[in-house]
Amino acid sequence: MKSRGEFGFIDYIKKHFPAPEGTIGIGDDCAVLPAGGGELLFSTDLLMEGVHFLRNESSPEDVGWKAAAVNLSDIASMGGIPVATFLSIALPKDAQGEWAERFIEGYTQISRQYDVPLLGGDTTSSLRDIAINVGVLGRSPSGKRLMRSGAKVGETIYVTGPLGDSAGGLQAILEDIDRTEEVNVLIERHKRPVPRVSTGRILMESGKVGAMMDISDGIASDLRHIMKASGAGAVISLDRIPCSPELISVCAGQGWDRYELATSGGEDFELLFTGPADLENELDIKIYPVGKIVEGDELIWTVDSRTVDYDYVGYNHF
Amino acid sequence: MKSRGEFGFIDYIKKHFPAPEGTIGIGDDCAVLPAGGGELLFSTDLLMEGVHFLRNESSPEDVGWKAAAVNLSDIASMGGIPVATFLSIALPKDAQGEWAERFIEGYTQISRQYDVPLLGGDTTSSLRDIAINVGVLGRSPSGKRLMRSGAKVGETIYVTGPLGDSAGGLQAILEDIDRTEEVNVLIERHKRPVPRVSTGRILMESGKVGAMMDISDGIASDLRHIMKASGAGAVISLDRIPCSPELISVCAGQGWDRYELATSGGEDFELLFTGPADLENELDIKIYPVGKIVEGDELIWTVDSRTVDYDYVGYNHF
Repeated sequence: MKSRGEFGFIDYIKKHFPAPEGTIGIGDDCAVLPAGGGELLFSTDLLMEGVHFLRNESSPEDVGWKAAAVNLSDIASMGGIPVATFLSIALPKDAQGEWAERFIEGYTQISRQYDVPLLGGDTTSSLRDIAINVGVLGRSPSGKRLMRSGAKVGETIYVTGPLGDSAGGLQAILEDIDRTEEVNVLIERHKRPVPRVSTGRILMESGKVGAMMDISDGIASDLRHIMKASGAGAVISLDRIPCSPELISVCAGQGWDRYELATSGGEDFELLFTGPADLENELDIKIYPVGKIVEGDELIWTVDSRTVDYDYVGYNHF
Repeated sequence: MKSRGEFGFIDYIKKHFPAPEGTIGIGDDCAVLPAGGGELLFSTDLLMEGVHFLRNESSPEDVGWKAAAVNLSDIASMGGIPVATFLSIALPKDAQGEWAERFIEGYTQISRQYDVPLLGGDTTSSLRDIAINVGVLGRSPSGKRLMRSGAKVGETIYVTGPLGDSAGGLQAILEDIDRTEEVNVLIERHKRPVPRVSTGRILMESGKVGAMMDISDGIASDLRHIMKASGAGAVISLDRIPCSPELISVCAGQGWDRYELATSGGEDFELLFTGPADLENELDIKIYPVGKIVEGDELIWTVDSRTVDYDYVGYNHF
């Protein structure tokens, strides 16, 4: 027999996400929106309980925030504007009540902050683990979106903010260290990553950027995608990678390797991009040069301009 | 350390799905495609192992087929044209090799049959259960897509094919009955549902259809969505619901209630729609009148034009 569970939950979501003028949102077989002009961007991410989050470590609100954040970051990494998200969620019995509603609260918070409607999705049950898939649709002017393949030899490599905080926060959780104020800053960055949507758009509109992507698996892994797609090598100055004062302090106290966290920890969701050496002076936003695109296919690490033997490769999902 | 598993699997998928001219598919942060004109349609479905399929009952190829089929059916149910799909898949260790590749084979079969490219997605690991999310993007001319809310009092209710086969096939699997030729027809309909994409488009282009949706949870449940969205009631003649000769025969042999399977079994993926009484004569496709839209908000069942007391409500996911 029918329980009211599924349709009750859908109604709950609908109340949080009325469809904007000119669109049809939750409630029919498909969402409907005008095609508009330019190009469409689409990305999707699947988060699994036990792999991407632990129910006893992350609040449902944080999981809801992060599920949307990682997708908005994919639109940001092309320099696009997010238009709508689509949420699929599979819930085991013990997550169908309070957990699910609190998840929607967090999802709603970030959606309102970035002014992106949820236009559709799917709700279903799961035997054991929570599964969450978010799809995001974005737009950009035709031919303007920034790809991984656009890096050119001689360009400077930049990041948009400090790296390693999220990985430091995760390590703090896993090692269960004292929650000092600094540690809590790192944990917050891990749980509530900030997609660089407006920064990405400014970089796209500058017309100066070669290649761009977001740092989800660590610069050591992600930069290799740009190198491969662009057919080039890269030199990264480990000592120019920006790190937050909190990360530096916590690493010193715990004896953690800050370089490892900053290069291969992942989930920073800062943007990684290439452009002219003087780009810093042309833009109103803070960007950090960390290296150069060079000929070849190798990723070379330096400290004080000297090559170092370094083999961090970033996070792999399998 | 990095295994080659994840990126190797992505390369495997890429070989099956080269990006069509004018689009950017698998390999960057987002898929890119021209916005085009008209309206965009989007739908997404999440399939969980143990809930939507069992690994020892369904071949990976069948799961791959069905994951795409249920989404193409959502586009069909608006009268739209599918443009691209996006596949997210979470795989436990023991499904990361052969199972995953055979899944992609089935997904490729239906994608080629309907000429719909896979333009992106996500691959990740899972602790225990396989999770599969498919998103589908479609198009329709502005304002022409068929909604659930368009039914008008006096319209005839139609379906596009026999109902109950899929539910009969599922029951045959669950009760492990002898696999006669007829039983195998039902099981095949359960495992390889056929989305009615071209039929949906013909119905959209006729300009005569009021409301339309696909039958995924059983007409007893799905028709209520049309009734609610359209603010109307309905009368369904149980004895006019088309059933296949195979279903009739197997039900007779097993003592199963054919009406229950045909009205509340779900997963038929035939289209359910409303239109003028003479629509049958105007179209080149076979359609089956099964009832009428009436005033009120009740769903009334009849046999031989007499009201019967009947309480089937369709499948619920929670």
